[in-house]
Amino acid sequence: MPTQILPSPVLSATKDTAMTKRAINFSAGPACLPESVIHQAQSDLWDIAGSGIGILEHSHRGKVFDRVLEEAVADCRAVGGIPDNYHVLFIQGGASTQFAMVPMNFLGSGQTADYLDTGVWANKAIKEAQIFGKVNIAASSKDKTYNYIPDEGTRSYTPGAAYCHYCSNNTIYGTEFRDVPSHPTSAPIICDASSNIFSRPLDVTRHAMIYAGAQKNLGPAGCVLVIISDEFLKSSQNRADLPTMMRYSVHAENESRYNTPNTFAIYLMGQVFKWIKSQGGLTAIEAMNNEKAAVLYNYLEATDFYTCPTRKQDRSNMNIVFKTPSEDLDRKFLAAAGAAGLDGLAGHRSAGGMRASIYNAFPIEGVRTLVDFMKGFEKENG
Amino acid sequence: MPTQILPSPVLSATKDTAMTKRAINFSAGPACLPESVIHQAQSDLWDIAGSGIGILEHSHRGKVFDRVLEEAVADCRAVGGIPDNYHVLFIQGGASTQFAMVPMNFLGSGQTADYLDTGVWANKAIKEAQIFGKVNIAASSKDKTYNYIPDEGTRSYTPGAAYCHYCSNNTIYGTEFRDVPSHPTSAPIICDASSNIFSRPLDVTRHAMIYAGAQKNLGPAGCVLVIISDEFLKSSQNRADLPTMMRYSVHAENESRYNTPNTFAIYLMGQVFKWIKSQGGLTAIEAMNNEKAAVLYNYLEATDFYTCPTRKQDRSNMNIVFKTPSEDLDRKFLAAAGAAGLDGLAGHRSAGGMRASIYNAFPIEGVRTLVDFMKGFEKENG
Repeated sequence: MPTQILPSPVLSATKDTAMTKRAINFSAGPACLPESVIHQAQSDLWDIAGSGIGILEHSHRGKVFDRVLEEAVADCRAVGGIPDNYHVLFIQGGASTQFAMVPMNFLGSGQTADYLDTGVWANKAIKEAQIFGKVNIAASSKDKTYNYIPDEGTRSYTPGAAYCHYCSNNTIYGTEFRDVPSHPTSAPIICDASSNIFSRPLDVTRHAMIYAGAQKNLGPAGCVLVIISDEFLKSSQNRADLPTMMRYSVHAENESRYNTPNTFAIYLMGQVFKWIKSQGGLTAIEAMNNEKAAVLYNYLEATDFYTCPTRKQDRSNMNIVFKTPSEDLDRKFLAAAGAAGLDGLAGHRSAGGMRASIYNAFPIEGVRTLVDFMKGFEKENG
Repeated sequence: MPTQILPSPVLSATKDTAMTKRAINFSAGPACLPESVIHQAQSDLWDIAGSGIGILEHSHRGKVFDRVLEEAVADCRAVGGIPDNYHVLFIQGGASTQFAMVPMNFLGSGQTADYLDTGVWANKAIKEAQIFGKVNIAASSKDKTYNYIPDEGTRSYTPGAAYCHYCSNNTIYGTEFRDVPSHPTSAPIICDASSNIFSRPLDVTRHAMIYAGAQKNLGPAGCVLVIISDEFLKSSQNRADLPTMMRYSVHAENESRYNTPNTFAIYLMGQVFKWIKSQGGLTAIEAMNNEKAAVLYNYLEATDFYTCPTRKQDRSNMNIVFKTPSEDLDRKFLAAAGAAGLDGLAGHRSAGGMRASIYNAFPIEGVRTLVDFMKGFEKENG
């Protein structure tokens, strides 16, 4: 048994810990949350809405959770501009479960699904779909380590495809789609928006379905937001051999409560939706994200010491990747950054280098601190 | 959009709310948690283990979460007496997803699985298994609204069954198995222990697999604890058409981190395991549960006003069901109990009447308060 490093449960003076200075958290996900949301959650863990019962302890079919869920859905609709003919669902299992549910529900025998291969996660979605049906890789940027988004003109779509799947932001490689793919035969568009959902205004109606793991821009790990049009939902194959929990129709008919959902994640996502509203909605959030990303990208453009491998017009506002001139210096950079309270900057194990994940809740001061640190490191090692 | 009843995120004085008097929470799940665990979680939401980052915001592959997971597994093994040849896994999707994963992984074509039909959830497991293969209902207590556990001698097991599945505690009907089923051809025994896991010492080695949704005795909703023997795991059919996330082997090989797990639920379950240890482990917990249940059952035996429909030798220590002489009085009872701060006593919508769920974390004072309330109600209405 490992040495115990976490304290046993004891009464904690939360008022004191709330004063603790926190690290600057560049984690790619689970990632930093708005501090006001954390404080609200601290309170609601003990007693939510004056019920005398904490949010973790409320029945998912009780009146308090009824309201938590109703408000989360309503605030999600308000934030995302989601029309009434779309369902807003909360499903467990992460985007990896969606990779399977999408083809299990919507890829019939004899049909082909178009997939855009723009990174490790897009590729995992492809591999999973191949278990269940025929997949056409309409375009891939694997040839250049996924450092760009293939131009619309270079994509080979399938006429009459069952659907077309893309990943709107590629966390590992720091690329982001500027536009929704334009399918020649208007195949239903499905978007894995796990790492840039609600980072900018979203054209829901150009999609048949959007899904996003919560742990980057929406809340804690363990819940996926699924936005799906009723028309598309009704086109499901309804294969008789599908597990009940893998049917979108079951989740939709039961409004995310066929079984006990991840109640805490739904609660916390609801609080994040309220926080987005308090910031001025997605237009204001986009302006802040543009400003934050510009601080770092402008510096990366101006320096010869650091390089950003991604094609300029495809650069992500959420995940910014960069390298020093050598792997040795990358390691030195990461060690020094960690010591300076800049946490979670290591690139994904498959990409190396550095990655600054600066989702909605990440403060601009943190980006400025990083750039100051980078300048100092360049001066000492350049 | 519904009227907003929850406050927008604001800085909360958690020290004040920690003083709030809480309701007595009889919820069947999500259910009451140890108060010391909630206080610890309030603190760790802001900053865990001095990392300057809250538990919700830590990468699932970072050093802090490495330790959270390691300790949760180690403490789970210590509490449950789980030998090294069993995997301890944390999987999303609730027991309802396990209902499908079990036959998808272990019910081969031409094989039969034995199921004991002792309640709504056991029955849902049966219906789900029938999607994937042949099921033999070895015994059922449906004839008497599931108010008893069919005796071992009355069960018709299948020689050479792929496995034998039972639900050790039936939340809705308030019945509990006293013993692990004894299969004549030693079929692997699989237990859905969602509502009585770790309420008493557990003979893991008599099972091939035990699974339990966390939201009753272990923590928050959104995570299932799966304890599975390595030998049984290796006997999986490994069907080529299984979604990756539905393979136990994938979760075992990746030690619950094939994708981002429900990190908060794993953290909180770990804290509950530490709390169980601090109470003296499962032997002490069982003694407390016996004492708590006796307070209520002894009163139910002594009164003619209330009735407990379950067969005496099969009565659950976790969920105690009872009725007044009429449905009208049941309604009156529930309204008066709610007004008196006794929350969550309504029976399941399929059973009616009352149900007191008194899991590990439920305090004995709460049971005494309930009995006092019941006596008063009997005096006024009897």
